[in-house]
Amino acid sequence: MLIQELSRKASLDLLAGMRFGRLACARGNQPYVVPFYFAYDNNCLYSFSMVGQKIEWMRANPLVCVETEEIVDPREWISIVIFGRYEELHDNEAGRARRNQPPGSVSRSISETPERPNTRDFAYKLLQEYAAWWEPGSVKTGDHDTDLPPVPLYYCIHILQITGHRCTHDSVAPPAASLPLTDLGESGWAQRILRQLGVKRG
Amino acid sequence: MLIQELSRKASLDLLAGMRFGRLACARGNQPYVVPFYFAYDNNCLYSFSMVGQKIEWMRANPLVCVETEEIVDPREWISIVIFGRYEELHDNEAGRARRNQPPGSVSRSISETPERPNTRDFAYKLLQEYAAWWEPGSVKTGDHDTDLPPVPLYYCIHILQITGHRCTHDSVAPPAASLPLTDLGESGWAQRILRQLGVKRG
Repeated sequence: MLIQELSRKASLDLLAGMRFGRLACARGNQPYVVPFYFAYDNNCLYSFSMVGQKIEWMRANPLVCVETEEIVDPREWISIVIFGRYEELHDNEAGRARRNQPPGSVSRSISETPERPNTRDFAYKLLQEYAAWWEPGSVKTGDHDTDLPPVPLYYCIHILQITGHRCTHDSVAPPAASLPLTDLGESGWAQRILRQLGVKRG
Repeated sequence: MLIQELSRKASLDLLAGMRFGRLACARGNQPYVVPFYFAYDNNCLYSFSMVGQKIEWMRANPLVCVETEEIVDPREWISIVIFGRYEELHDNEAGRARRNQPPGSVSRSISETPERPNTRDFAYKLLQEYAAWWEPGSVKTGDHDTDLPPVPLYYCIHILQITGHRCTHDSVAPPAASLPLTDLGESGWAQRILRQLGVKRG
């Protein structure tokens, strides 16, 4: 078994194919982590949410952490961890529609600058693919007391730091940034730990 | 589709059958989340880890959050979120063995009090089942520079608060604590959002 640290580029390339992960935020000393769907583009993760605990906490403290992985089996997996900064996408189309403002009355949306992809495309992609997974927090929004449909808020996570690791079955000599883990059978370190612990096989 | 809030007892019962989740900790305003294996017993999650960033952060701030889920498909899943407190299991058997101290020289281990399950049983269970998944952080412990095997540290997460949600395909009338989400087809709210966004089907 070989655990290999991935380059930033390799991590971002893998991230581009991922859609599901966990988003952690913090208020004071208390962290909070929930599952979420995202779409990656140009050093940002885009997502949507109902306003709730997660959004309120990220508004107060925009520093977040995202974890995502692909697991084939316990010896073959990829794990990516991101430190990022939350940014709310204000004045998007959903907000304008909800407030019944004519599109021209709001200055050009943050989602429509040349530097950012069009939020509608991401909304479309995410809602089309993943609308059925709706975060549990949405049950507390109170929107079901009105005739209006729940309107999601759009946000992006700017990637400040990304680290990726890949575990493979390979037994080839590891690159400098990785550590080969020895056989996990009777003679491996896990068994040595168990023997040190005085644990016998049942 | 129906999202239902679970009782504390139902959440704990489900948790007892789960083994894999994400553990979030925080330093200052920065959250950090990583995958981890655990075993549940008596209002605590037990796990092991190499000393690294996660352990150092939890030593400085014991408030953590754990998320775990079971996903059948996007419309059928269980998600559990826990607010908890980290406690390191000092003076366990591994520590004594590493320091070559005779067992009698250390006062009765925290793992052996009547109130707690024997850490060795959890170590055995977890290492036997999951030793092949070794957290990426272990590549930075430096233990591979010595002849000694890496020795894990054992800890538990005391469950202070637990919330669980279950999403089902059921279309029966929801209980008081749940919200029925309407059809996600052409007439559902997701489609209405898309129409509000001005997004047309491709």
